[in-house]
Amino acid sequence: MSSQMRRIALARRPTGLPVPEDFAFETGPVPKPEADQVLVEVTHHSLDPYMRGRMDDAGSYAASLALGETMIGQGVGRVLASDVEGIAEGDMVTGMTGWASHAVLPGNQLRVLDDSVPATTALGVLGMPGFTAWKALEVYGRPKAGETLVIAAATGPVGATVGQLAKAAGLRTVAIAGGAAKCTLARDSFGFDAAIDHHAFDDARSLRKALAQACPDGVDIYWENVGGKVLEAVMPLMNVGGRVPVCGTIAWYGGGSSDKLPQIWRTILTKRLSVNGFIIFDHWDGFPAFLTDMTPRVAKGEIAYLEDITEGLENAPETFIAMLTGGNTGKTIIKV
Amino acid sequence: MSSQMRRIALARRPTGLPVPEDFAFETGPVPKPEADQVLVEVTHHSLDPYMRGRMDDAGSYAASLALGETMIGQGVGRVLASDVEGIAEGDMVTGMTGWASHAVLPGNQLRVLDDSVPATTALGVLGMPGFTAWKALEVYGRPKAGETLVIAAATGPVGATVGQLAKAAGLRTVAIAGGAAKCTLARDSFGFDAAIDHHAFDDARSLRKALAQACPDGVDIYWENVGGKVLEAVMPLMNVGGRVPVCGTIAWYGGGSSDKLPQIWRTILTKRLSVNGFIIFDHWDGFPAFLTDMTPRVAKGEIAYLEDITEGLENAPETFIAMLTGGNTGKTIIKV
Repeated sequence: MSSQMRRIALARRPTGLPVPEDFAFETGPVPKPEADQVLVEVTHHSLDPYMRGRMDDAGSYAASLALGETMIGQGVGRVLASDVEGIAEGDMVTGMTGWASHAVLPGNQLRVLDDSVPATTALGVLGMPGFTAWKALEVYGRPKAGETLVIAAATGPVGATVGQLAKAAGLRTVAIAGGAAKCTLARDSFGFDAAIDHHAFDDARSLRKALAQACPDGVDIYWENVGGKVLEAVMPLMNVGGRVPVCGTIAWYGGGSSDKLPQIWRTILTKRLSVNGFIIFDHWDGFPAFLTDMTPRVAKGEIAYLEDITEGLENAPETFIAMLTGGNTGKTIIKV
Repeated sequence: MSSQMRRIALARRPTGLPVPEDFAFETGPVPKPEADQVLVEVTHHSLDPYMRGRMDDAGSYAASLALGETMIGQGVGRVLASDVEGIAEGDMVTGMTGWASHAVLPGNQLRVLDDSVPATTALGVLGMPGFTAWKALEVYGRPKAGETLVIAAATGPVGATVGQLAKAAGLRTVAIAGGAAKCTLARDSFGFDAAIDHHAFDDARSLRKALAQACPDGVDIYWENVGGKVLEAVMPLMNVGGRVPVCGTIAWYGGGSSDKLPQIWRTILTKRLSVNGFIIFDHWDGFPAFLTDMTPRVAKGEIAYLEDITEGLENAPETFIAMLTGGNTGKTIIKV
């Protein structure tokens, strides 16, 4: 056991895309658990786009991080000390550890992991991203066999799971991804029927032409991960009664502009679209049902997943920044 | 009975706001009904914003009007000749007569009017606008007592009915209307708790300040009739879980621009909004239930309505153009 706790704190609020100076690497004594608490040695922590929102002063989903506070996030790790019933030293657990080497958490905020699947799956395909895909596709996507689904960031942990679940439900699935390698991955590993490299198109209009070819029956579900050029390209292709679950607008997290509001608003009207923003935390009571359904499917290899693991807590800021601009391939994880 | 049929035809496709030259006033022989048809002398016809969409070549709700075709629209009138069972000479009926002095329609496309209310109510509060308010408020607005509803074009036939139904359901209702007279009307005749004159504000930001004062608990339902400045003003005030039924975007029917797509898309996400476009024709099977509920409420004066009647079929184009820019007060009707 290391005698020092290492952590990454919020040093400064970013404007637009974060830069390394917005983060501080800090060390201090390993915290001691009190009654009903557990000390965890974090082996891996997750990097997710939602964390960018928490760095702002206000206006996002949840309370902002304070300056100096440890960056928020889910981790997995090994229990070093516990006086909580049902959690023993040596157990692998998951919880909101933050970007840190150690965390002390109340026992009721930790979950002991199922050992039929690797522990890191709790951060991706069997964690928040996988649950987001599983639950919101059902609630907001309302997929029907024979329909067409389009999704960008299609090789990310949400996108890859949405694509596979939609395919399993009998839909045509069309991936948008950045670069030829990710397109190949989308088709070969995640079973998308078609994959389009958005880097190959300068503007929404040319991207739309390629999409129209890949979607001969139009688009019934556009799973919104990105906003920007992709949104502008897809909307005119939507079918009447289409659904747009709004999961993220990552292309605009660092600013950006679009003058297409009148056209998109009118498309919502004329195509009778259902556009629904959501955050998965509102649906958390469905998580046990998700694990029951998905754990065996992942264990059997029916649902594929991909992890992009970077070693070293000190590399978390740069890895996070790269992820926000599409530099990752698969679920982004830091091996602490 | 006039020996000539008069009608207004689509002469040219407008670009943006229509101009008088886009319409042609034409005369011809009165058509003769065939088997199962009814000849109607139109006494009044309706003018509605949706008609603007039908003048375009494509891309709106429904098939475009052909050049030379009579402008589409609902009318009420007296039966001159009928060999349809249940429809007798002299009956007052309603149907899609178009902008015309006479119409021949199949008997099954006409409805004989209830004489407990004036015939013209079939064009407004007890017609498509009233049904739009009644049905879509329930399905897409999902009002709950204690919530706040904001609606623009609040003295129009949809807006006035939405406001009264929401108020009856226990909501705080806030009107946006053009001019002090319409604001007074909204409060005094339609019972809105507050009314804001959008002409008094140059930009979305200043309009938002006034709205924020009128909505101390935020906005739960924004009924979208207009788009434009009002949309930009309201969206940041939406509460988590808010609903935005998209009924029209009249501010943008003649073009217009907005660079606020990224902000509005992000608000949909962070506030978990449900934005639903709809056209009321998709819900037509609910029309009989609407009439059963609303006819007595209108007959008793529980639901107020206001008609803006212009005399003379030849004045329909200019009245229509004025309506598209807010020149009407109440349900716009032409007395043929």
